[in-house]
Amino acid sequence: MNSSTSTSLPRLAQRLDDIEPFRVMAILARARALEAEGRDIIHLEVGEPDFATPEPIVQAGIAALQAGHTHYTPALGLSALRQAIARYYDERYGVELAADRIAVTPGASGGLLLAMTALFNPGDEVLLADPGYPCNRHFARVVEAEAKSIAVGPDTGYQLTAELVTKNWGPRTRGVLLANPGNPTGSVIDADSLRAIHAVVREKGGWLLVDEIYHELIYDRAEPTAAGLGDDVIVINSFSKYFLMTGWRLGWLVLPEALVPAVDKLAQNLFLAAPTLAQHAALAALKPTTRALLEAHKAELKARRDYLLPELQRLGFEVLAKPAGAFYLYADCSRFTDDSEAFAEHLLQEPGVAITPGTDFGAVEGRSHVRFAYAVELGRLKEAVQRLERCLS
Amino acid sequence: MNSSTSTSLPRLAQRLDDIEPFRVMAILARARALEAEGRDIIHLEVGEPDFATPEPIVQAGIAALQAGHTHYTPALGLSALRQAIARYYDERYGVELAADRIAVTPGASGGLLLAMTALFNPGDEVLLADPGYPCNRHFARVVEAEAKSIAVGPDTGYQLTAELVTKNWGPRTRGVLLANPGNPTGSVIDADSLRAIHAVVREKGGWLLVDEIYHELIYDRAEPTAAGLGDDVIVINSFSKYFLMTGWRLGWLVLPEALVPAVDKLAQNLFLAAPTLAQHAALAALKPTTRALLEAHKAELKARRDYLLPELQRLGFEVLAKPAGAFYLYADCSRFTDDSEAFAEHLLQEPGVAITPGTDFGAVEGRSHVRFAYAVELGRLKEAVQRLERCLS
Repeated sequence: MNSSTSTSLPRLAQRLDDIEPFRVMAILARARALEAEGRDIIHLEVGEPDFATPEPIVQAGIAALQAGHTHYTPALGLSALRQAIARYYDERYGVELAADRIAVTPGASGGLLLAMTALFNPGDEVLLADPGYPCNRHFARVVEAEAKSIAVGPDTGYQLTAELVTKNWGPRTRGVLLANPGNPTGSVIDADSLRAIHAVVREKGGWLLVDEIYHELIYDRAEPTAAGLGDDVIVINSFSKYFLMTGWRLGWLVLPEALVPAVDKLAQNLFLAAPTLAQHAALAALKPTTRALLEAHKAELKARRDYLLPELQRLGFEVLAKPAGAFYLYADCSRFTDDSEAFAEHLLQEPGVAITPGTDFGAVEGRSHVRFAYAVELGRLKEAVQRLERCLS
Repeated sequence: MNSSTSTSLPRLAQRLDDIEPFRVMAILARARALEAEGRDIIHLEVGEPDFATPEPIVQAGIAALQAGHTHYTPALGLSALRQAIARYYDERYGVELAADRIAVTPGASGGLLLAMTALFNPGDEVLLADPGYPCNRHFARVVEAEAKSIAVGPDTGYQLTAELVTKNWGPRTRGVLLANPGNPTGSVIDADSLRAIHAVVREKGGWLLVDEIYHELIYDRAEPTAAGLGDDVIVINSFSKYFLMTGWRLGWLVLPEALVPAVDKLAQNLFLAAPTLAQHAALAALKPTTRALLEAHKAELKARRDYLLPELQRLGFEVLAKPAGAFYLYADCSRFTDDSEAFAEHLLQEPGVAITPGTDFGAVEGRSHVRFAYAVELGRLKEAVQRLERCLS
C-alpha cells in the first residue's frame, strides 16, 4: 500500500517558534554540497575536534562488545564509571565527591535536559550569557521555563559576573547557567568569580548550573571547577571534547545529594540509561595511561590557537574575548561586514572557508561576529588564513 | 578541598510530583541485593530480553570502531540508515516511505521526547490507555502537556478503540498515543481498529502517535503498522526489542514530511545525534542474513509465552489481556491479594521470583494485577512456576 496524503496537518507546539536551528548545520550541509561538486572546503565551522577517539578507548569499546555488554545499565550509569568519575575529581581537582552524586547521562545534552526538567517550572527564569551556546537556552524553553540572556562583553571577559547576576535577578529568576569555558568565546570564569557568583545565587535561593564540557581544554591558566563549591551546585560535563568521544554520546552530572532520586527517576523515564558500550569505553578514557594521548591532542589544539589568533588579528578581525579554553575564536568581523551570515556565506562560496555566523550564539553582537573553530590540523589552518587573506585584502 | 555542605536547597520543579519512579527498578535493586547475599532470584520483572545482541550486529559495531566512526552523525541520523529503515517498511510491510521521513533517535525514548516537544503545548491533552507504559505519560508531563489515561479492559482487548477516543475527546485534546503491541499486556490493535482510530483523530484535527517498539514480536497474527495510514501519523520505533539492541540506545520515528524540519532542529538542540556506533551496527541488524537469527529468538519468546500462559492460569492467575505480542503477561492476582505491591515483594522474598506490580502501569487495575516478563530461558521459567506453585498453593 502507499501512504495516503493528508492535505493539512494539525498545528505544532508554539515552543518551536522560539527554538532556532543551528545555522552552522546549514553551512555544513552547503559545504558538503560544494565538496560533492569537487570544491575543497576548509571546515572551521563544526564544534568537533578532528581527532579520532584514542585507541585505548576504542579498544575498550571493542572488548566490551566482545564481552557481550549490550544490555541496559542502571539509569544513572555503571557503578564502576560513577566511582571512576568521582575519583577523577579528587585526582584532577582535589574535590572529594561521593560517587552516588555522579549521574552518567546520554551526552551533556541529556544531562542538561535532566537538570532543567528537575529544577524549573513554567515561567521560571534562568540567567545565561549572550553570546552563548544556543541549546542551553532551548533546553529551558522545552520545559516552558524562560532563558533570560544577558549581554556580556570584553569588560567582564565575555562571562557573567556576580554583579551582573545580582543586577539581573528578578522576581521569577530561579537559577543561573554558566558555561566555563564558554562557547563561542572560549572565555573562562576564574575560581574567585565562580565563588562570588555562587554566593549570590545561594543568597537569592536559586540554582547554579555550570556547563563544564570544555573542561581540561584550558590552555594558559588554572583549571576551575564548580564541583567543589558546595553540594547545591549542578555541574554538567561530557566525554565528548577533551576525551574525544563525540559520537559515543556520553556525559555526566555532578548533583546535589538531595537531587539524586529525582534525577534517577527522570533518567529512568526519559532515557532508560546512557549507551552501555560508551560507558565501558569511558572507563578506559579515565585511565592514567590514556591521559598522555589526550594531553598530546590538547597541546596540538593550543598550538593551533596560538597560530590562528594573531593571524586573524593581522587580517583585521578583532578578538576581544580572550580565548583561554575550548577550541573557538569569537571574532569581530565588522571591519568587513555588518551581516555575519552573508559574510560566512561569502567566505564559504569564494575562498571555501566554512565558519559560523555569530547569530548562532547571540542576539546582541551576532551580526558583527563570527566563530572560527580550530578543529582542523595546522596545515589546513594555514591554508585557510592564506585563502582569507587573498579574499579580504 | 572538600565540598562544603548547604543546609537547604531551592525547591524542585512541580512536575516531579507527577512523575513516578519505576517500581520495577526498586524491585530489581532488591533482587540484586538478595543475590549478593547468595539467594537465587528468577528475574521476571525486567522488560529486556535475556538474549545478547546477535553476532552480525556486534561485528558491525566492532568494524565501525575499527574504521574510526566515532564522530557525530547528522542530527536525524546516517543517510544510509534512514534509507535502510525506509526500505525495511517496504519489504516487511509493503509501505513505501521517503527516507527523509525517518528520524533516527537515541532510543524510542528520544523519539517520544522529540514528538511530544514538537506537537504539544502546555495544557494540551493526549489520550492514552490505562494500563500502559508509564513513561509515555511522563513525556507529556515534561513538556507541560497532560496525559489523560483512559481505562481499558478485556471488552476492548486492553486497547483504545475509535469509540473510546471519540467518547473521551475533549476541548483540550490534541492527540492520541497508542502502544501496539502494548506494555504490560502484549495486546495488539488490528489494522481495522487502527484505521478507525486514525479516522477519528484526523476528523478531530489531532495527532495520532503510535508506539510500535514491540513490532515484529507479534506471535499469532498479522503484523499491523500505522506507518502506512497516512502522512499525518507519527510512528515511534526502536532497535531495542526485536533487534536485541537495548544497551545501544537506538530508535527511530516515522514522521509526516512537514514535521521533519521541526524535528531536525529539535534533535540538533536536544541530542545533537543518536550514538554513531549504534547507527552503523543497526545497518547490519536490517540485513536479511541477520533476520534468521532474530526470528529464532522470536520463536523462543513465543515458546516461553505458550508455556507460561496456561501455567499461570493453572496456578490461579486470570489473564484477560490476550498476549498476542511483546514478552509480557498481565495477570489478575486478586485471588491471592488486593495489594500487588506487597504481593510482588512477598514473591521476591519468599520463592525468589521477581515480578512487577501492576501499579507501575496504571491506576485503575494496578493493585489487582502483576506483570510477568518472559525474558528468561524456558528452564528458568519452569523453575519459577514450581516455586510459585509451592508458595501459592
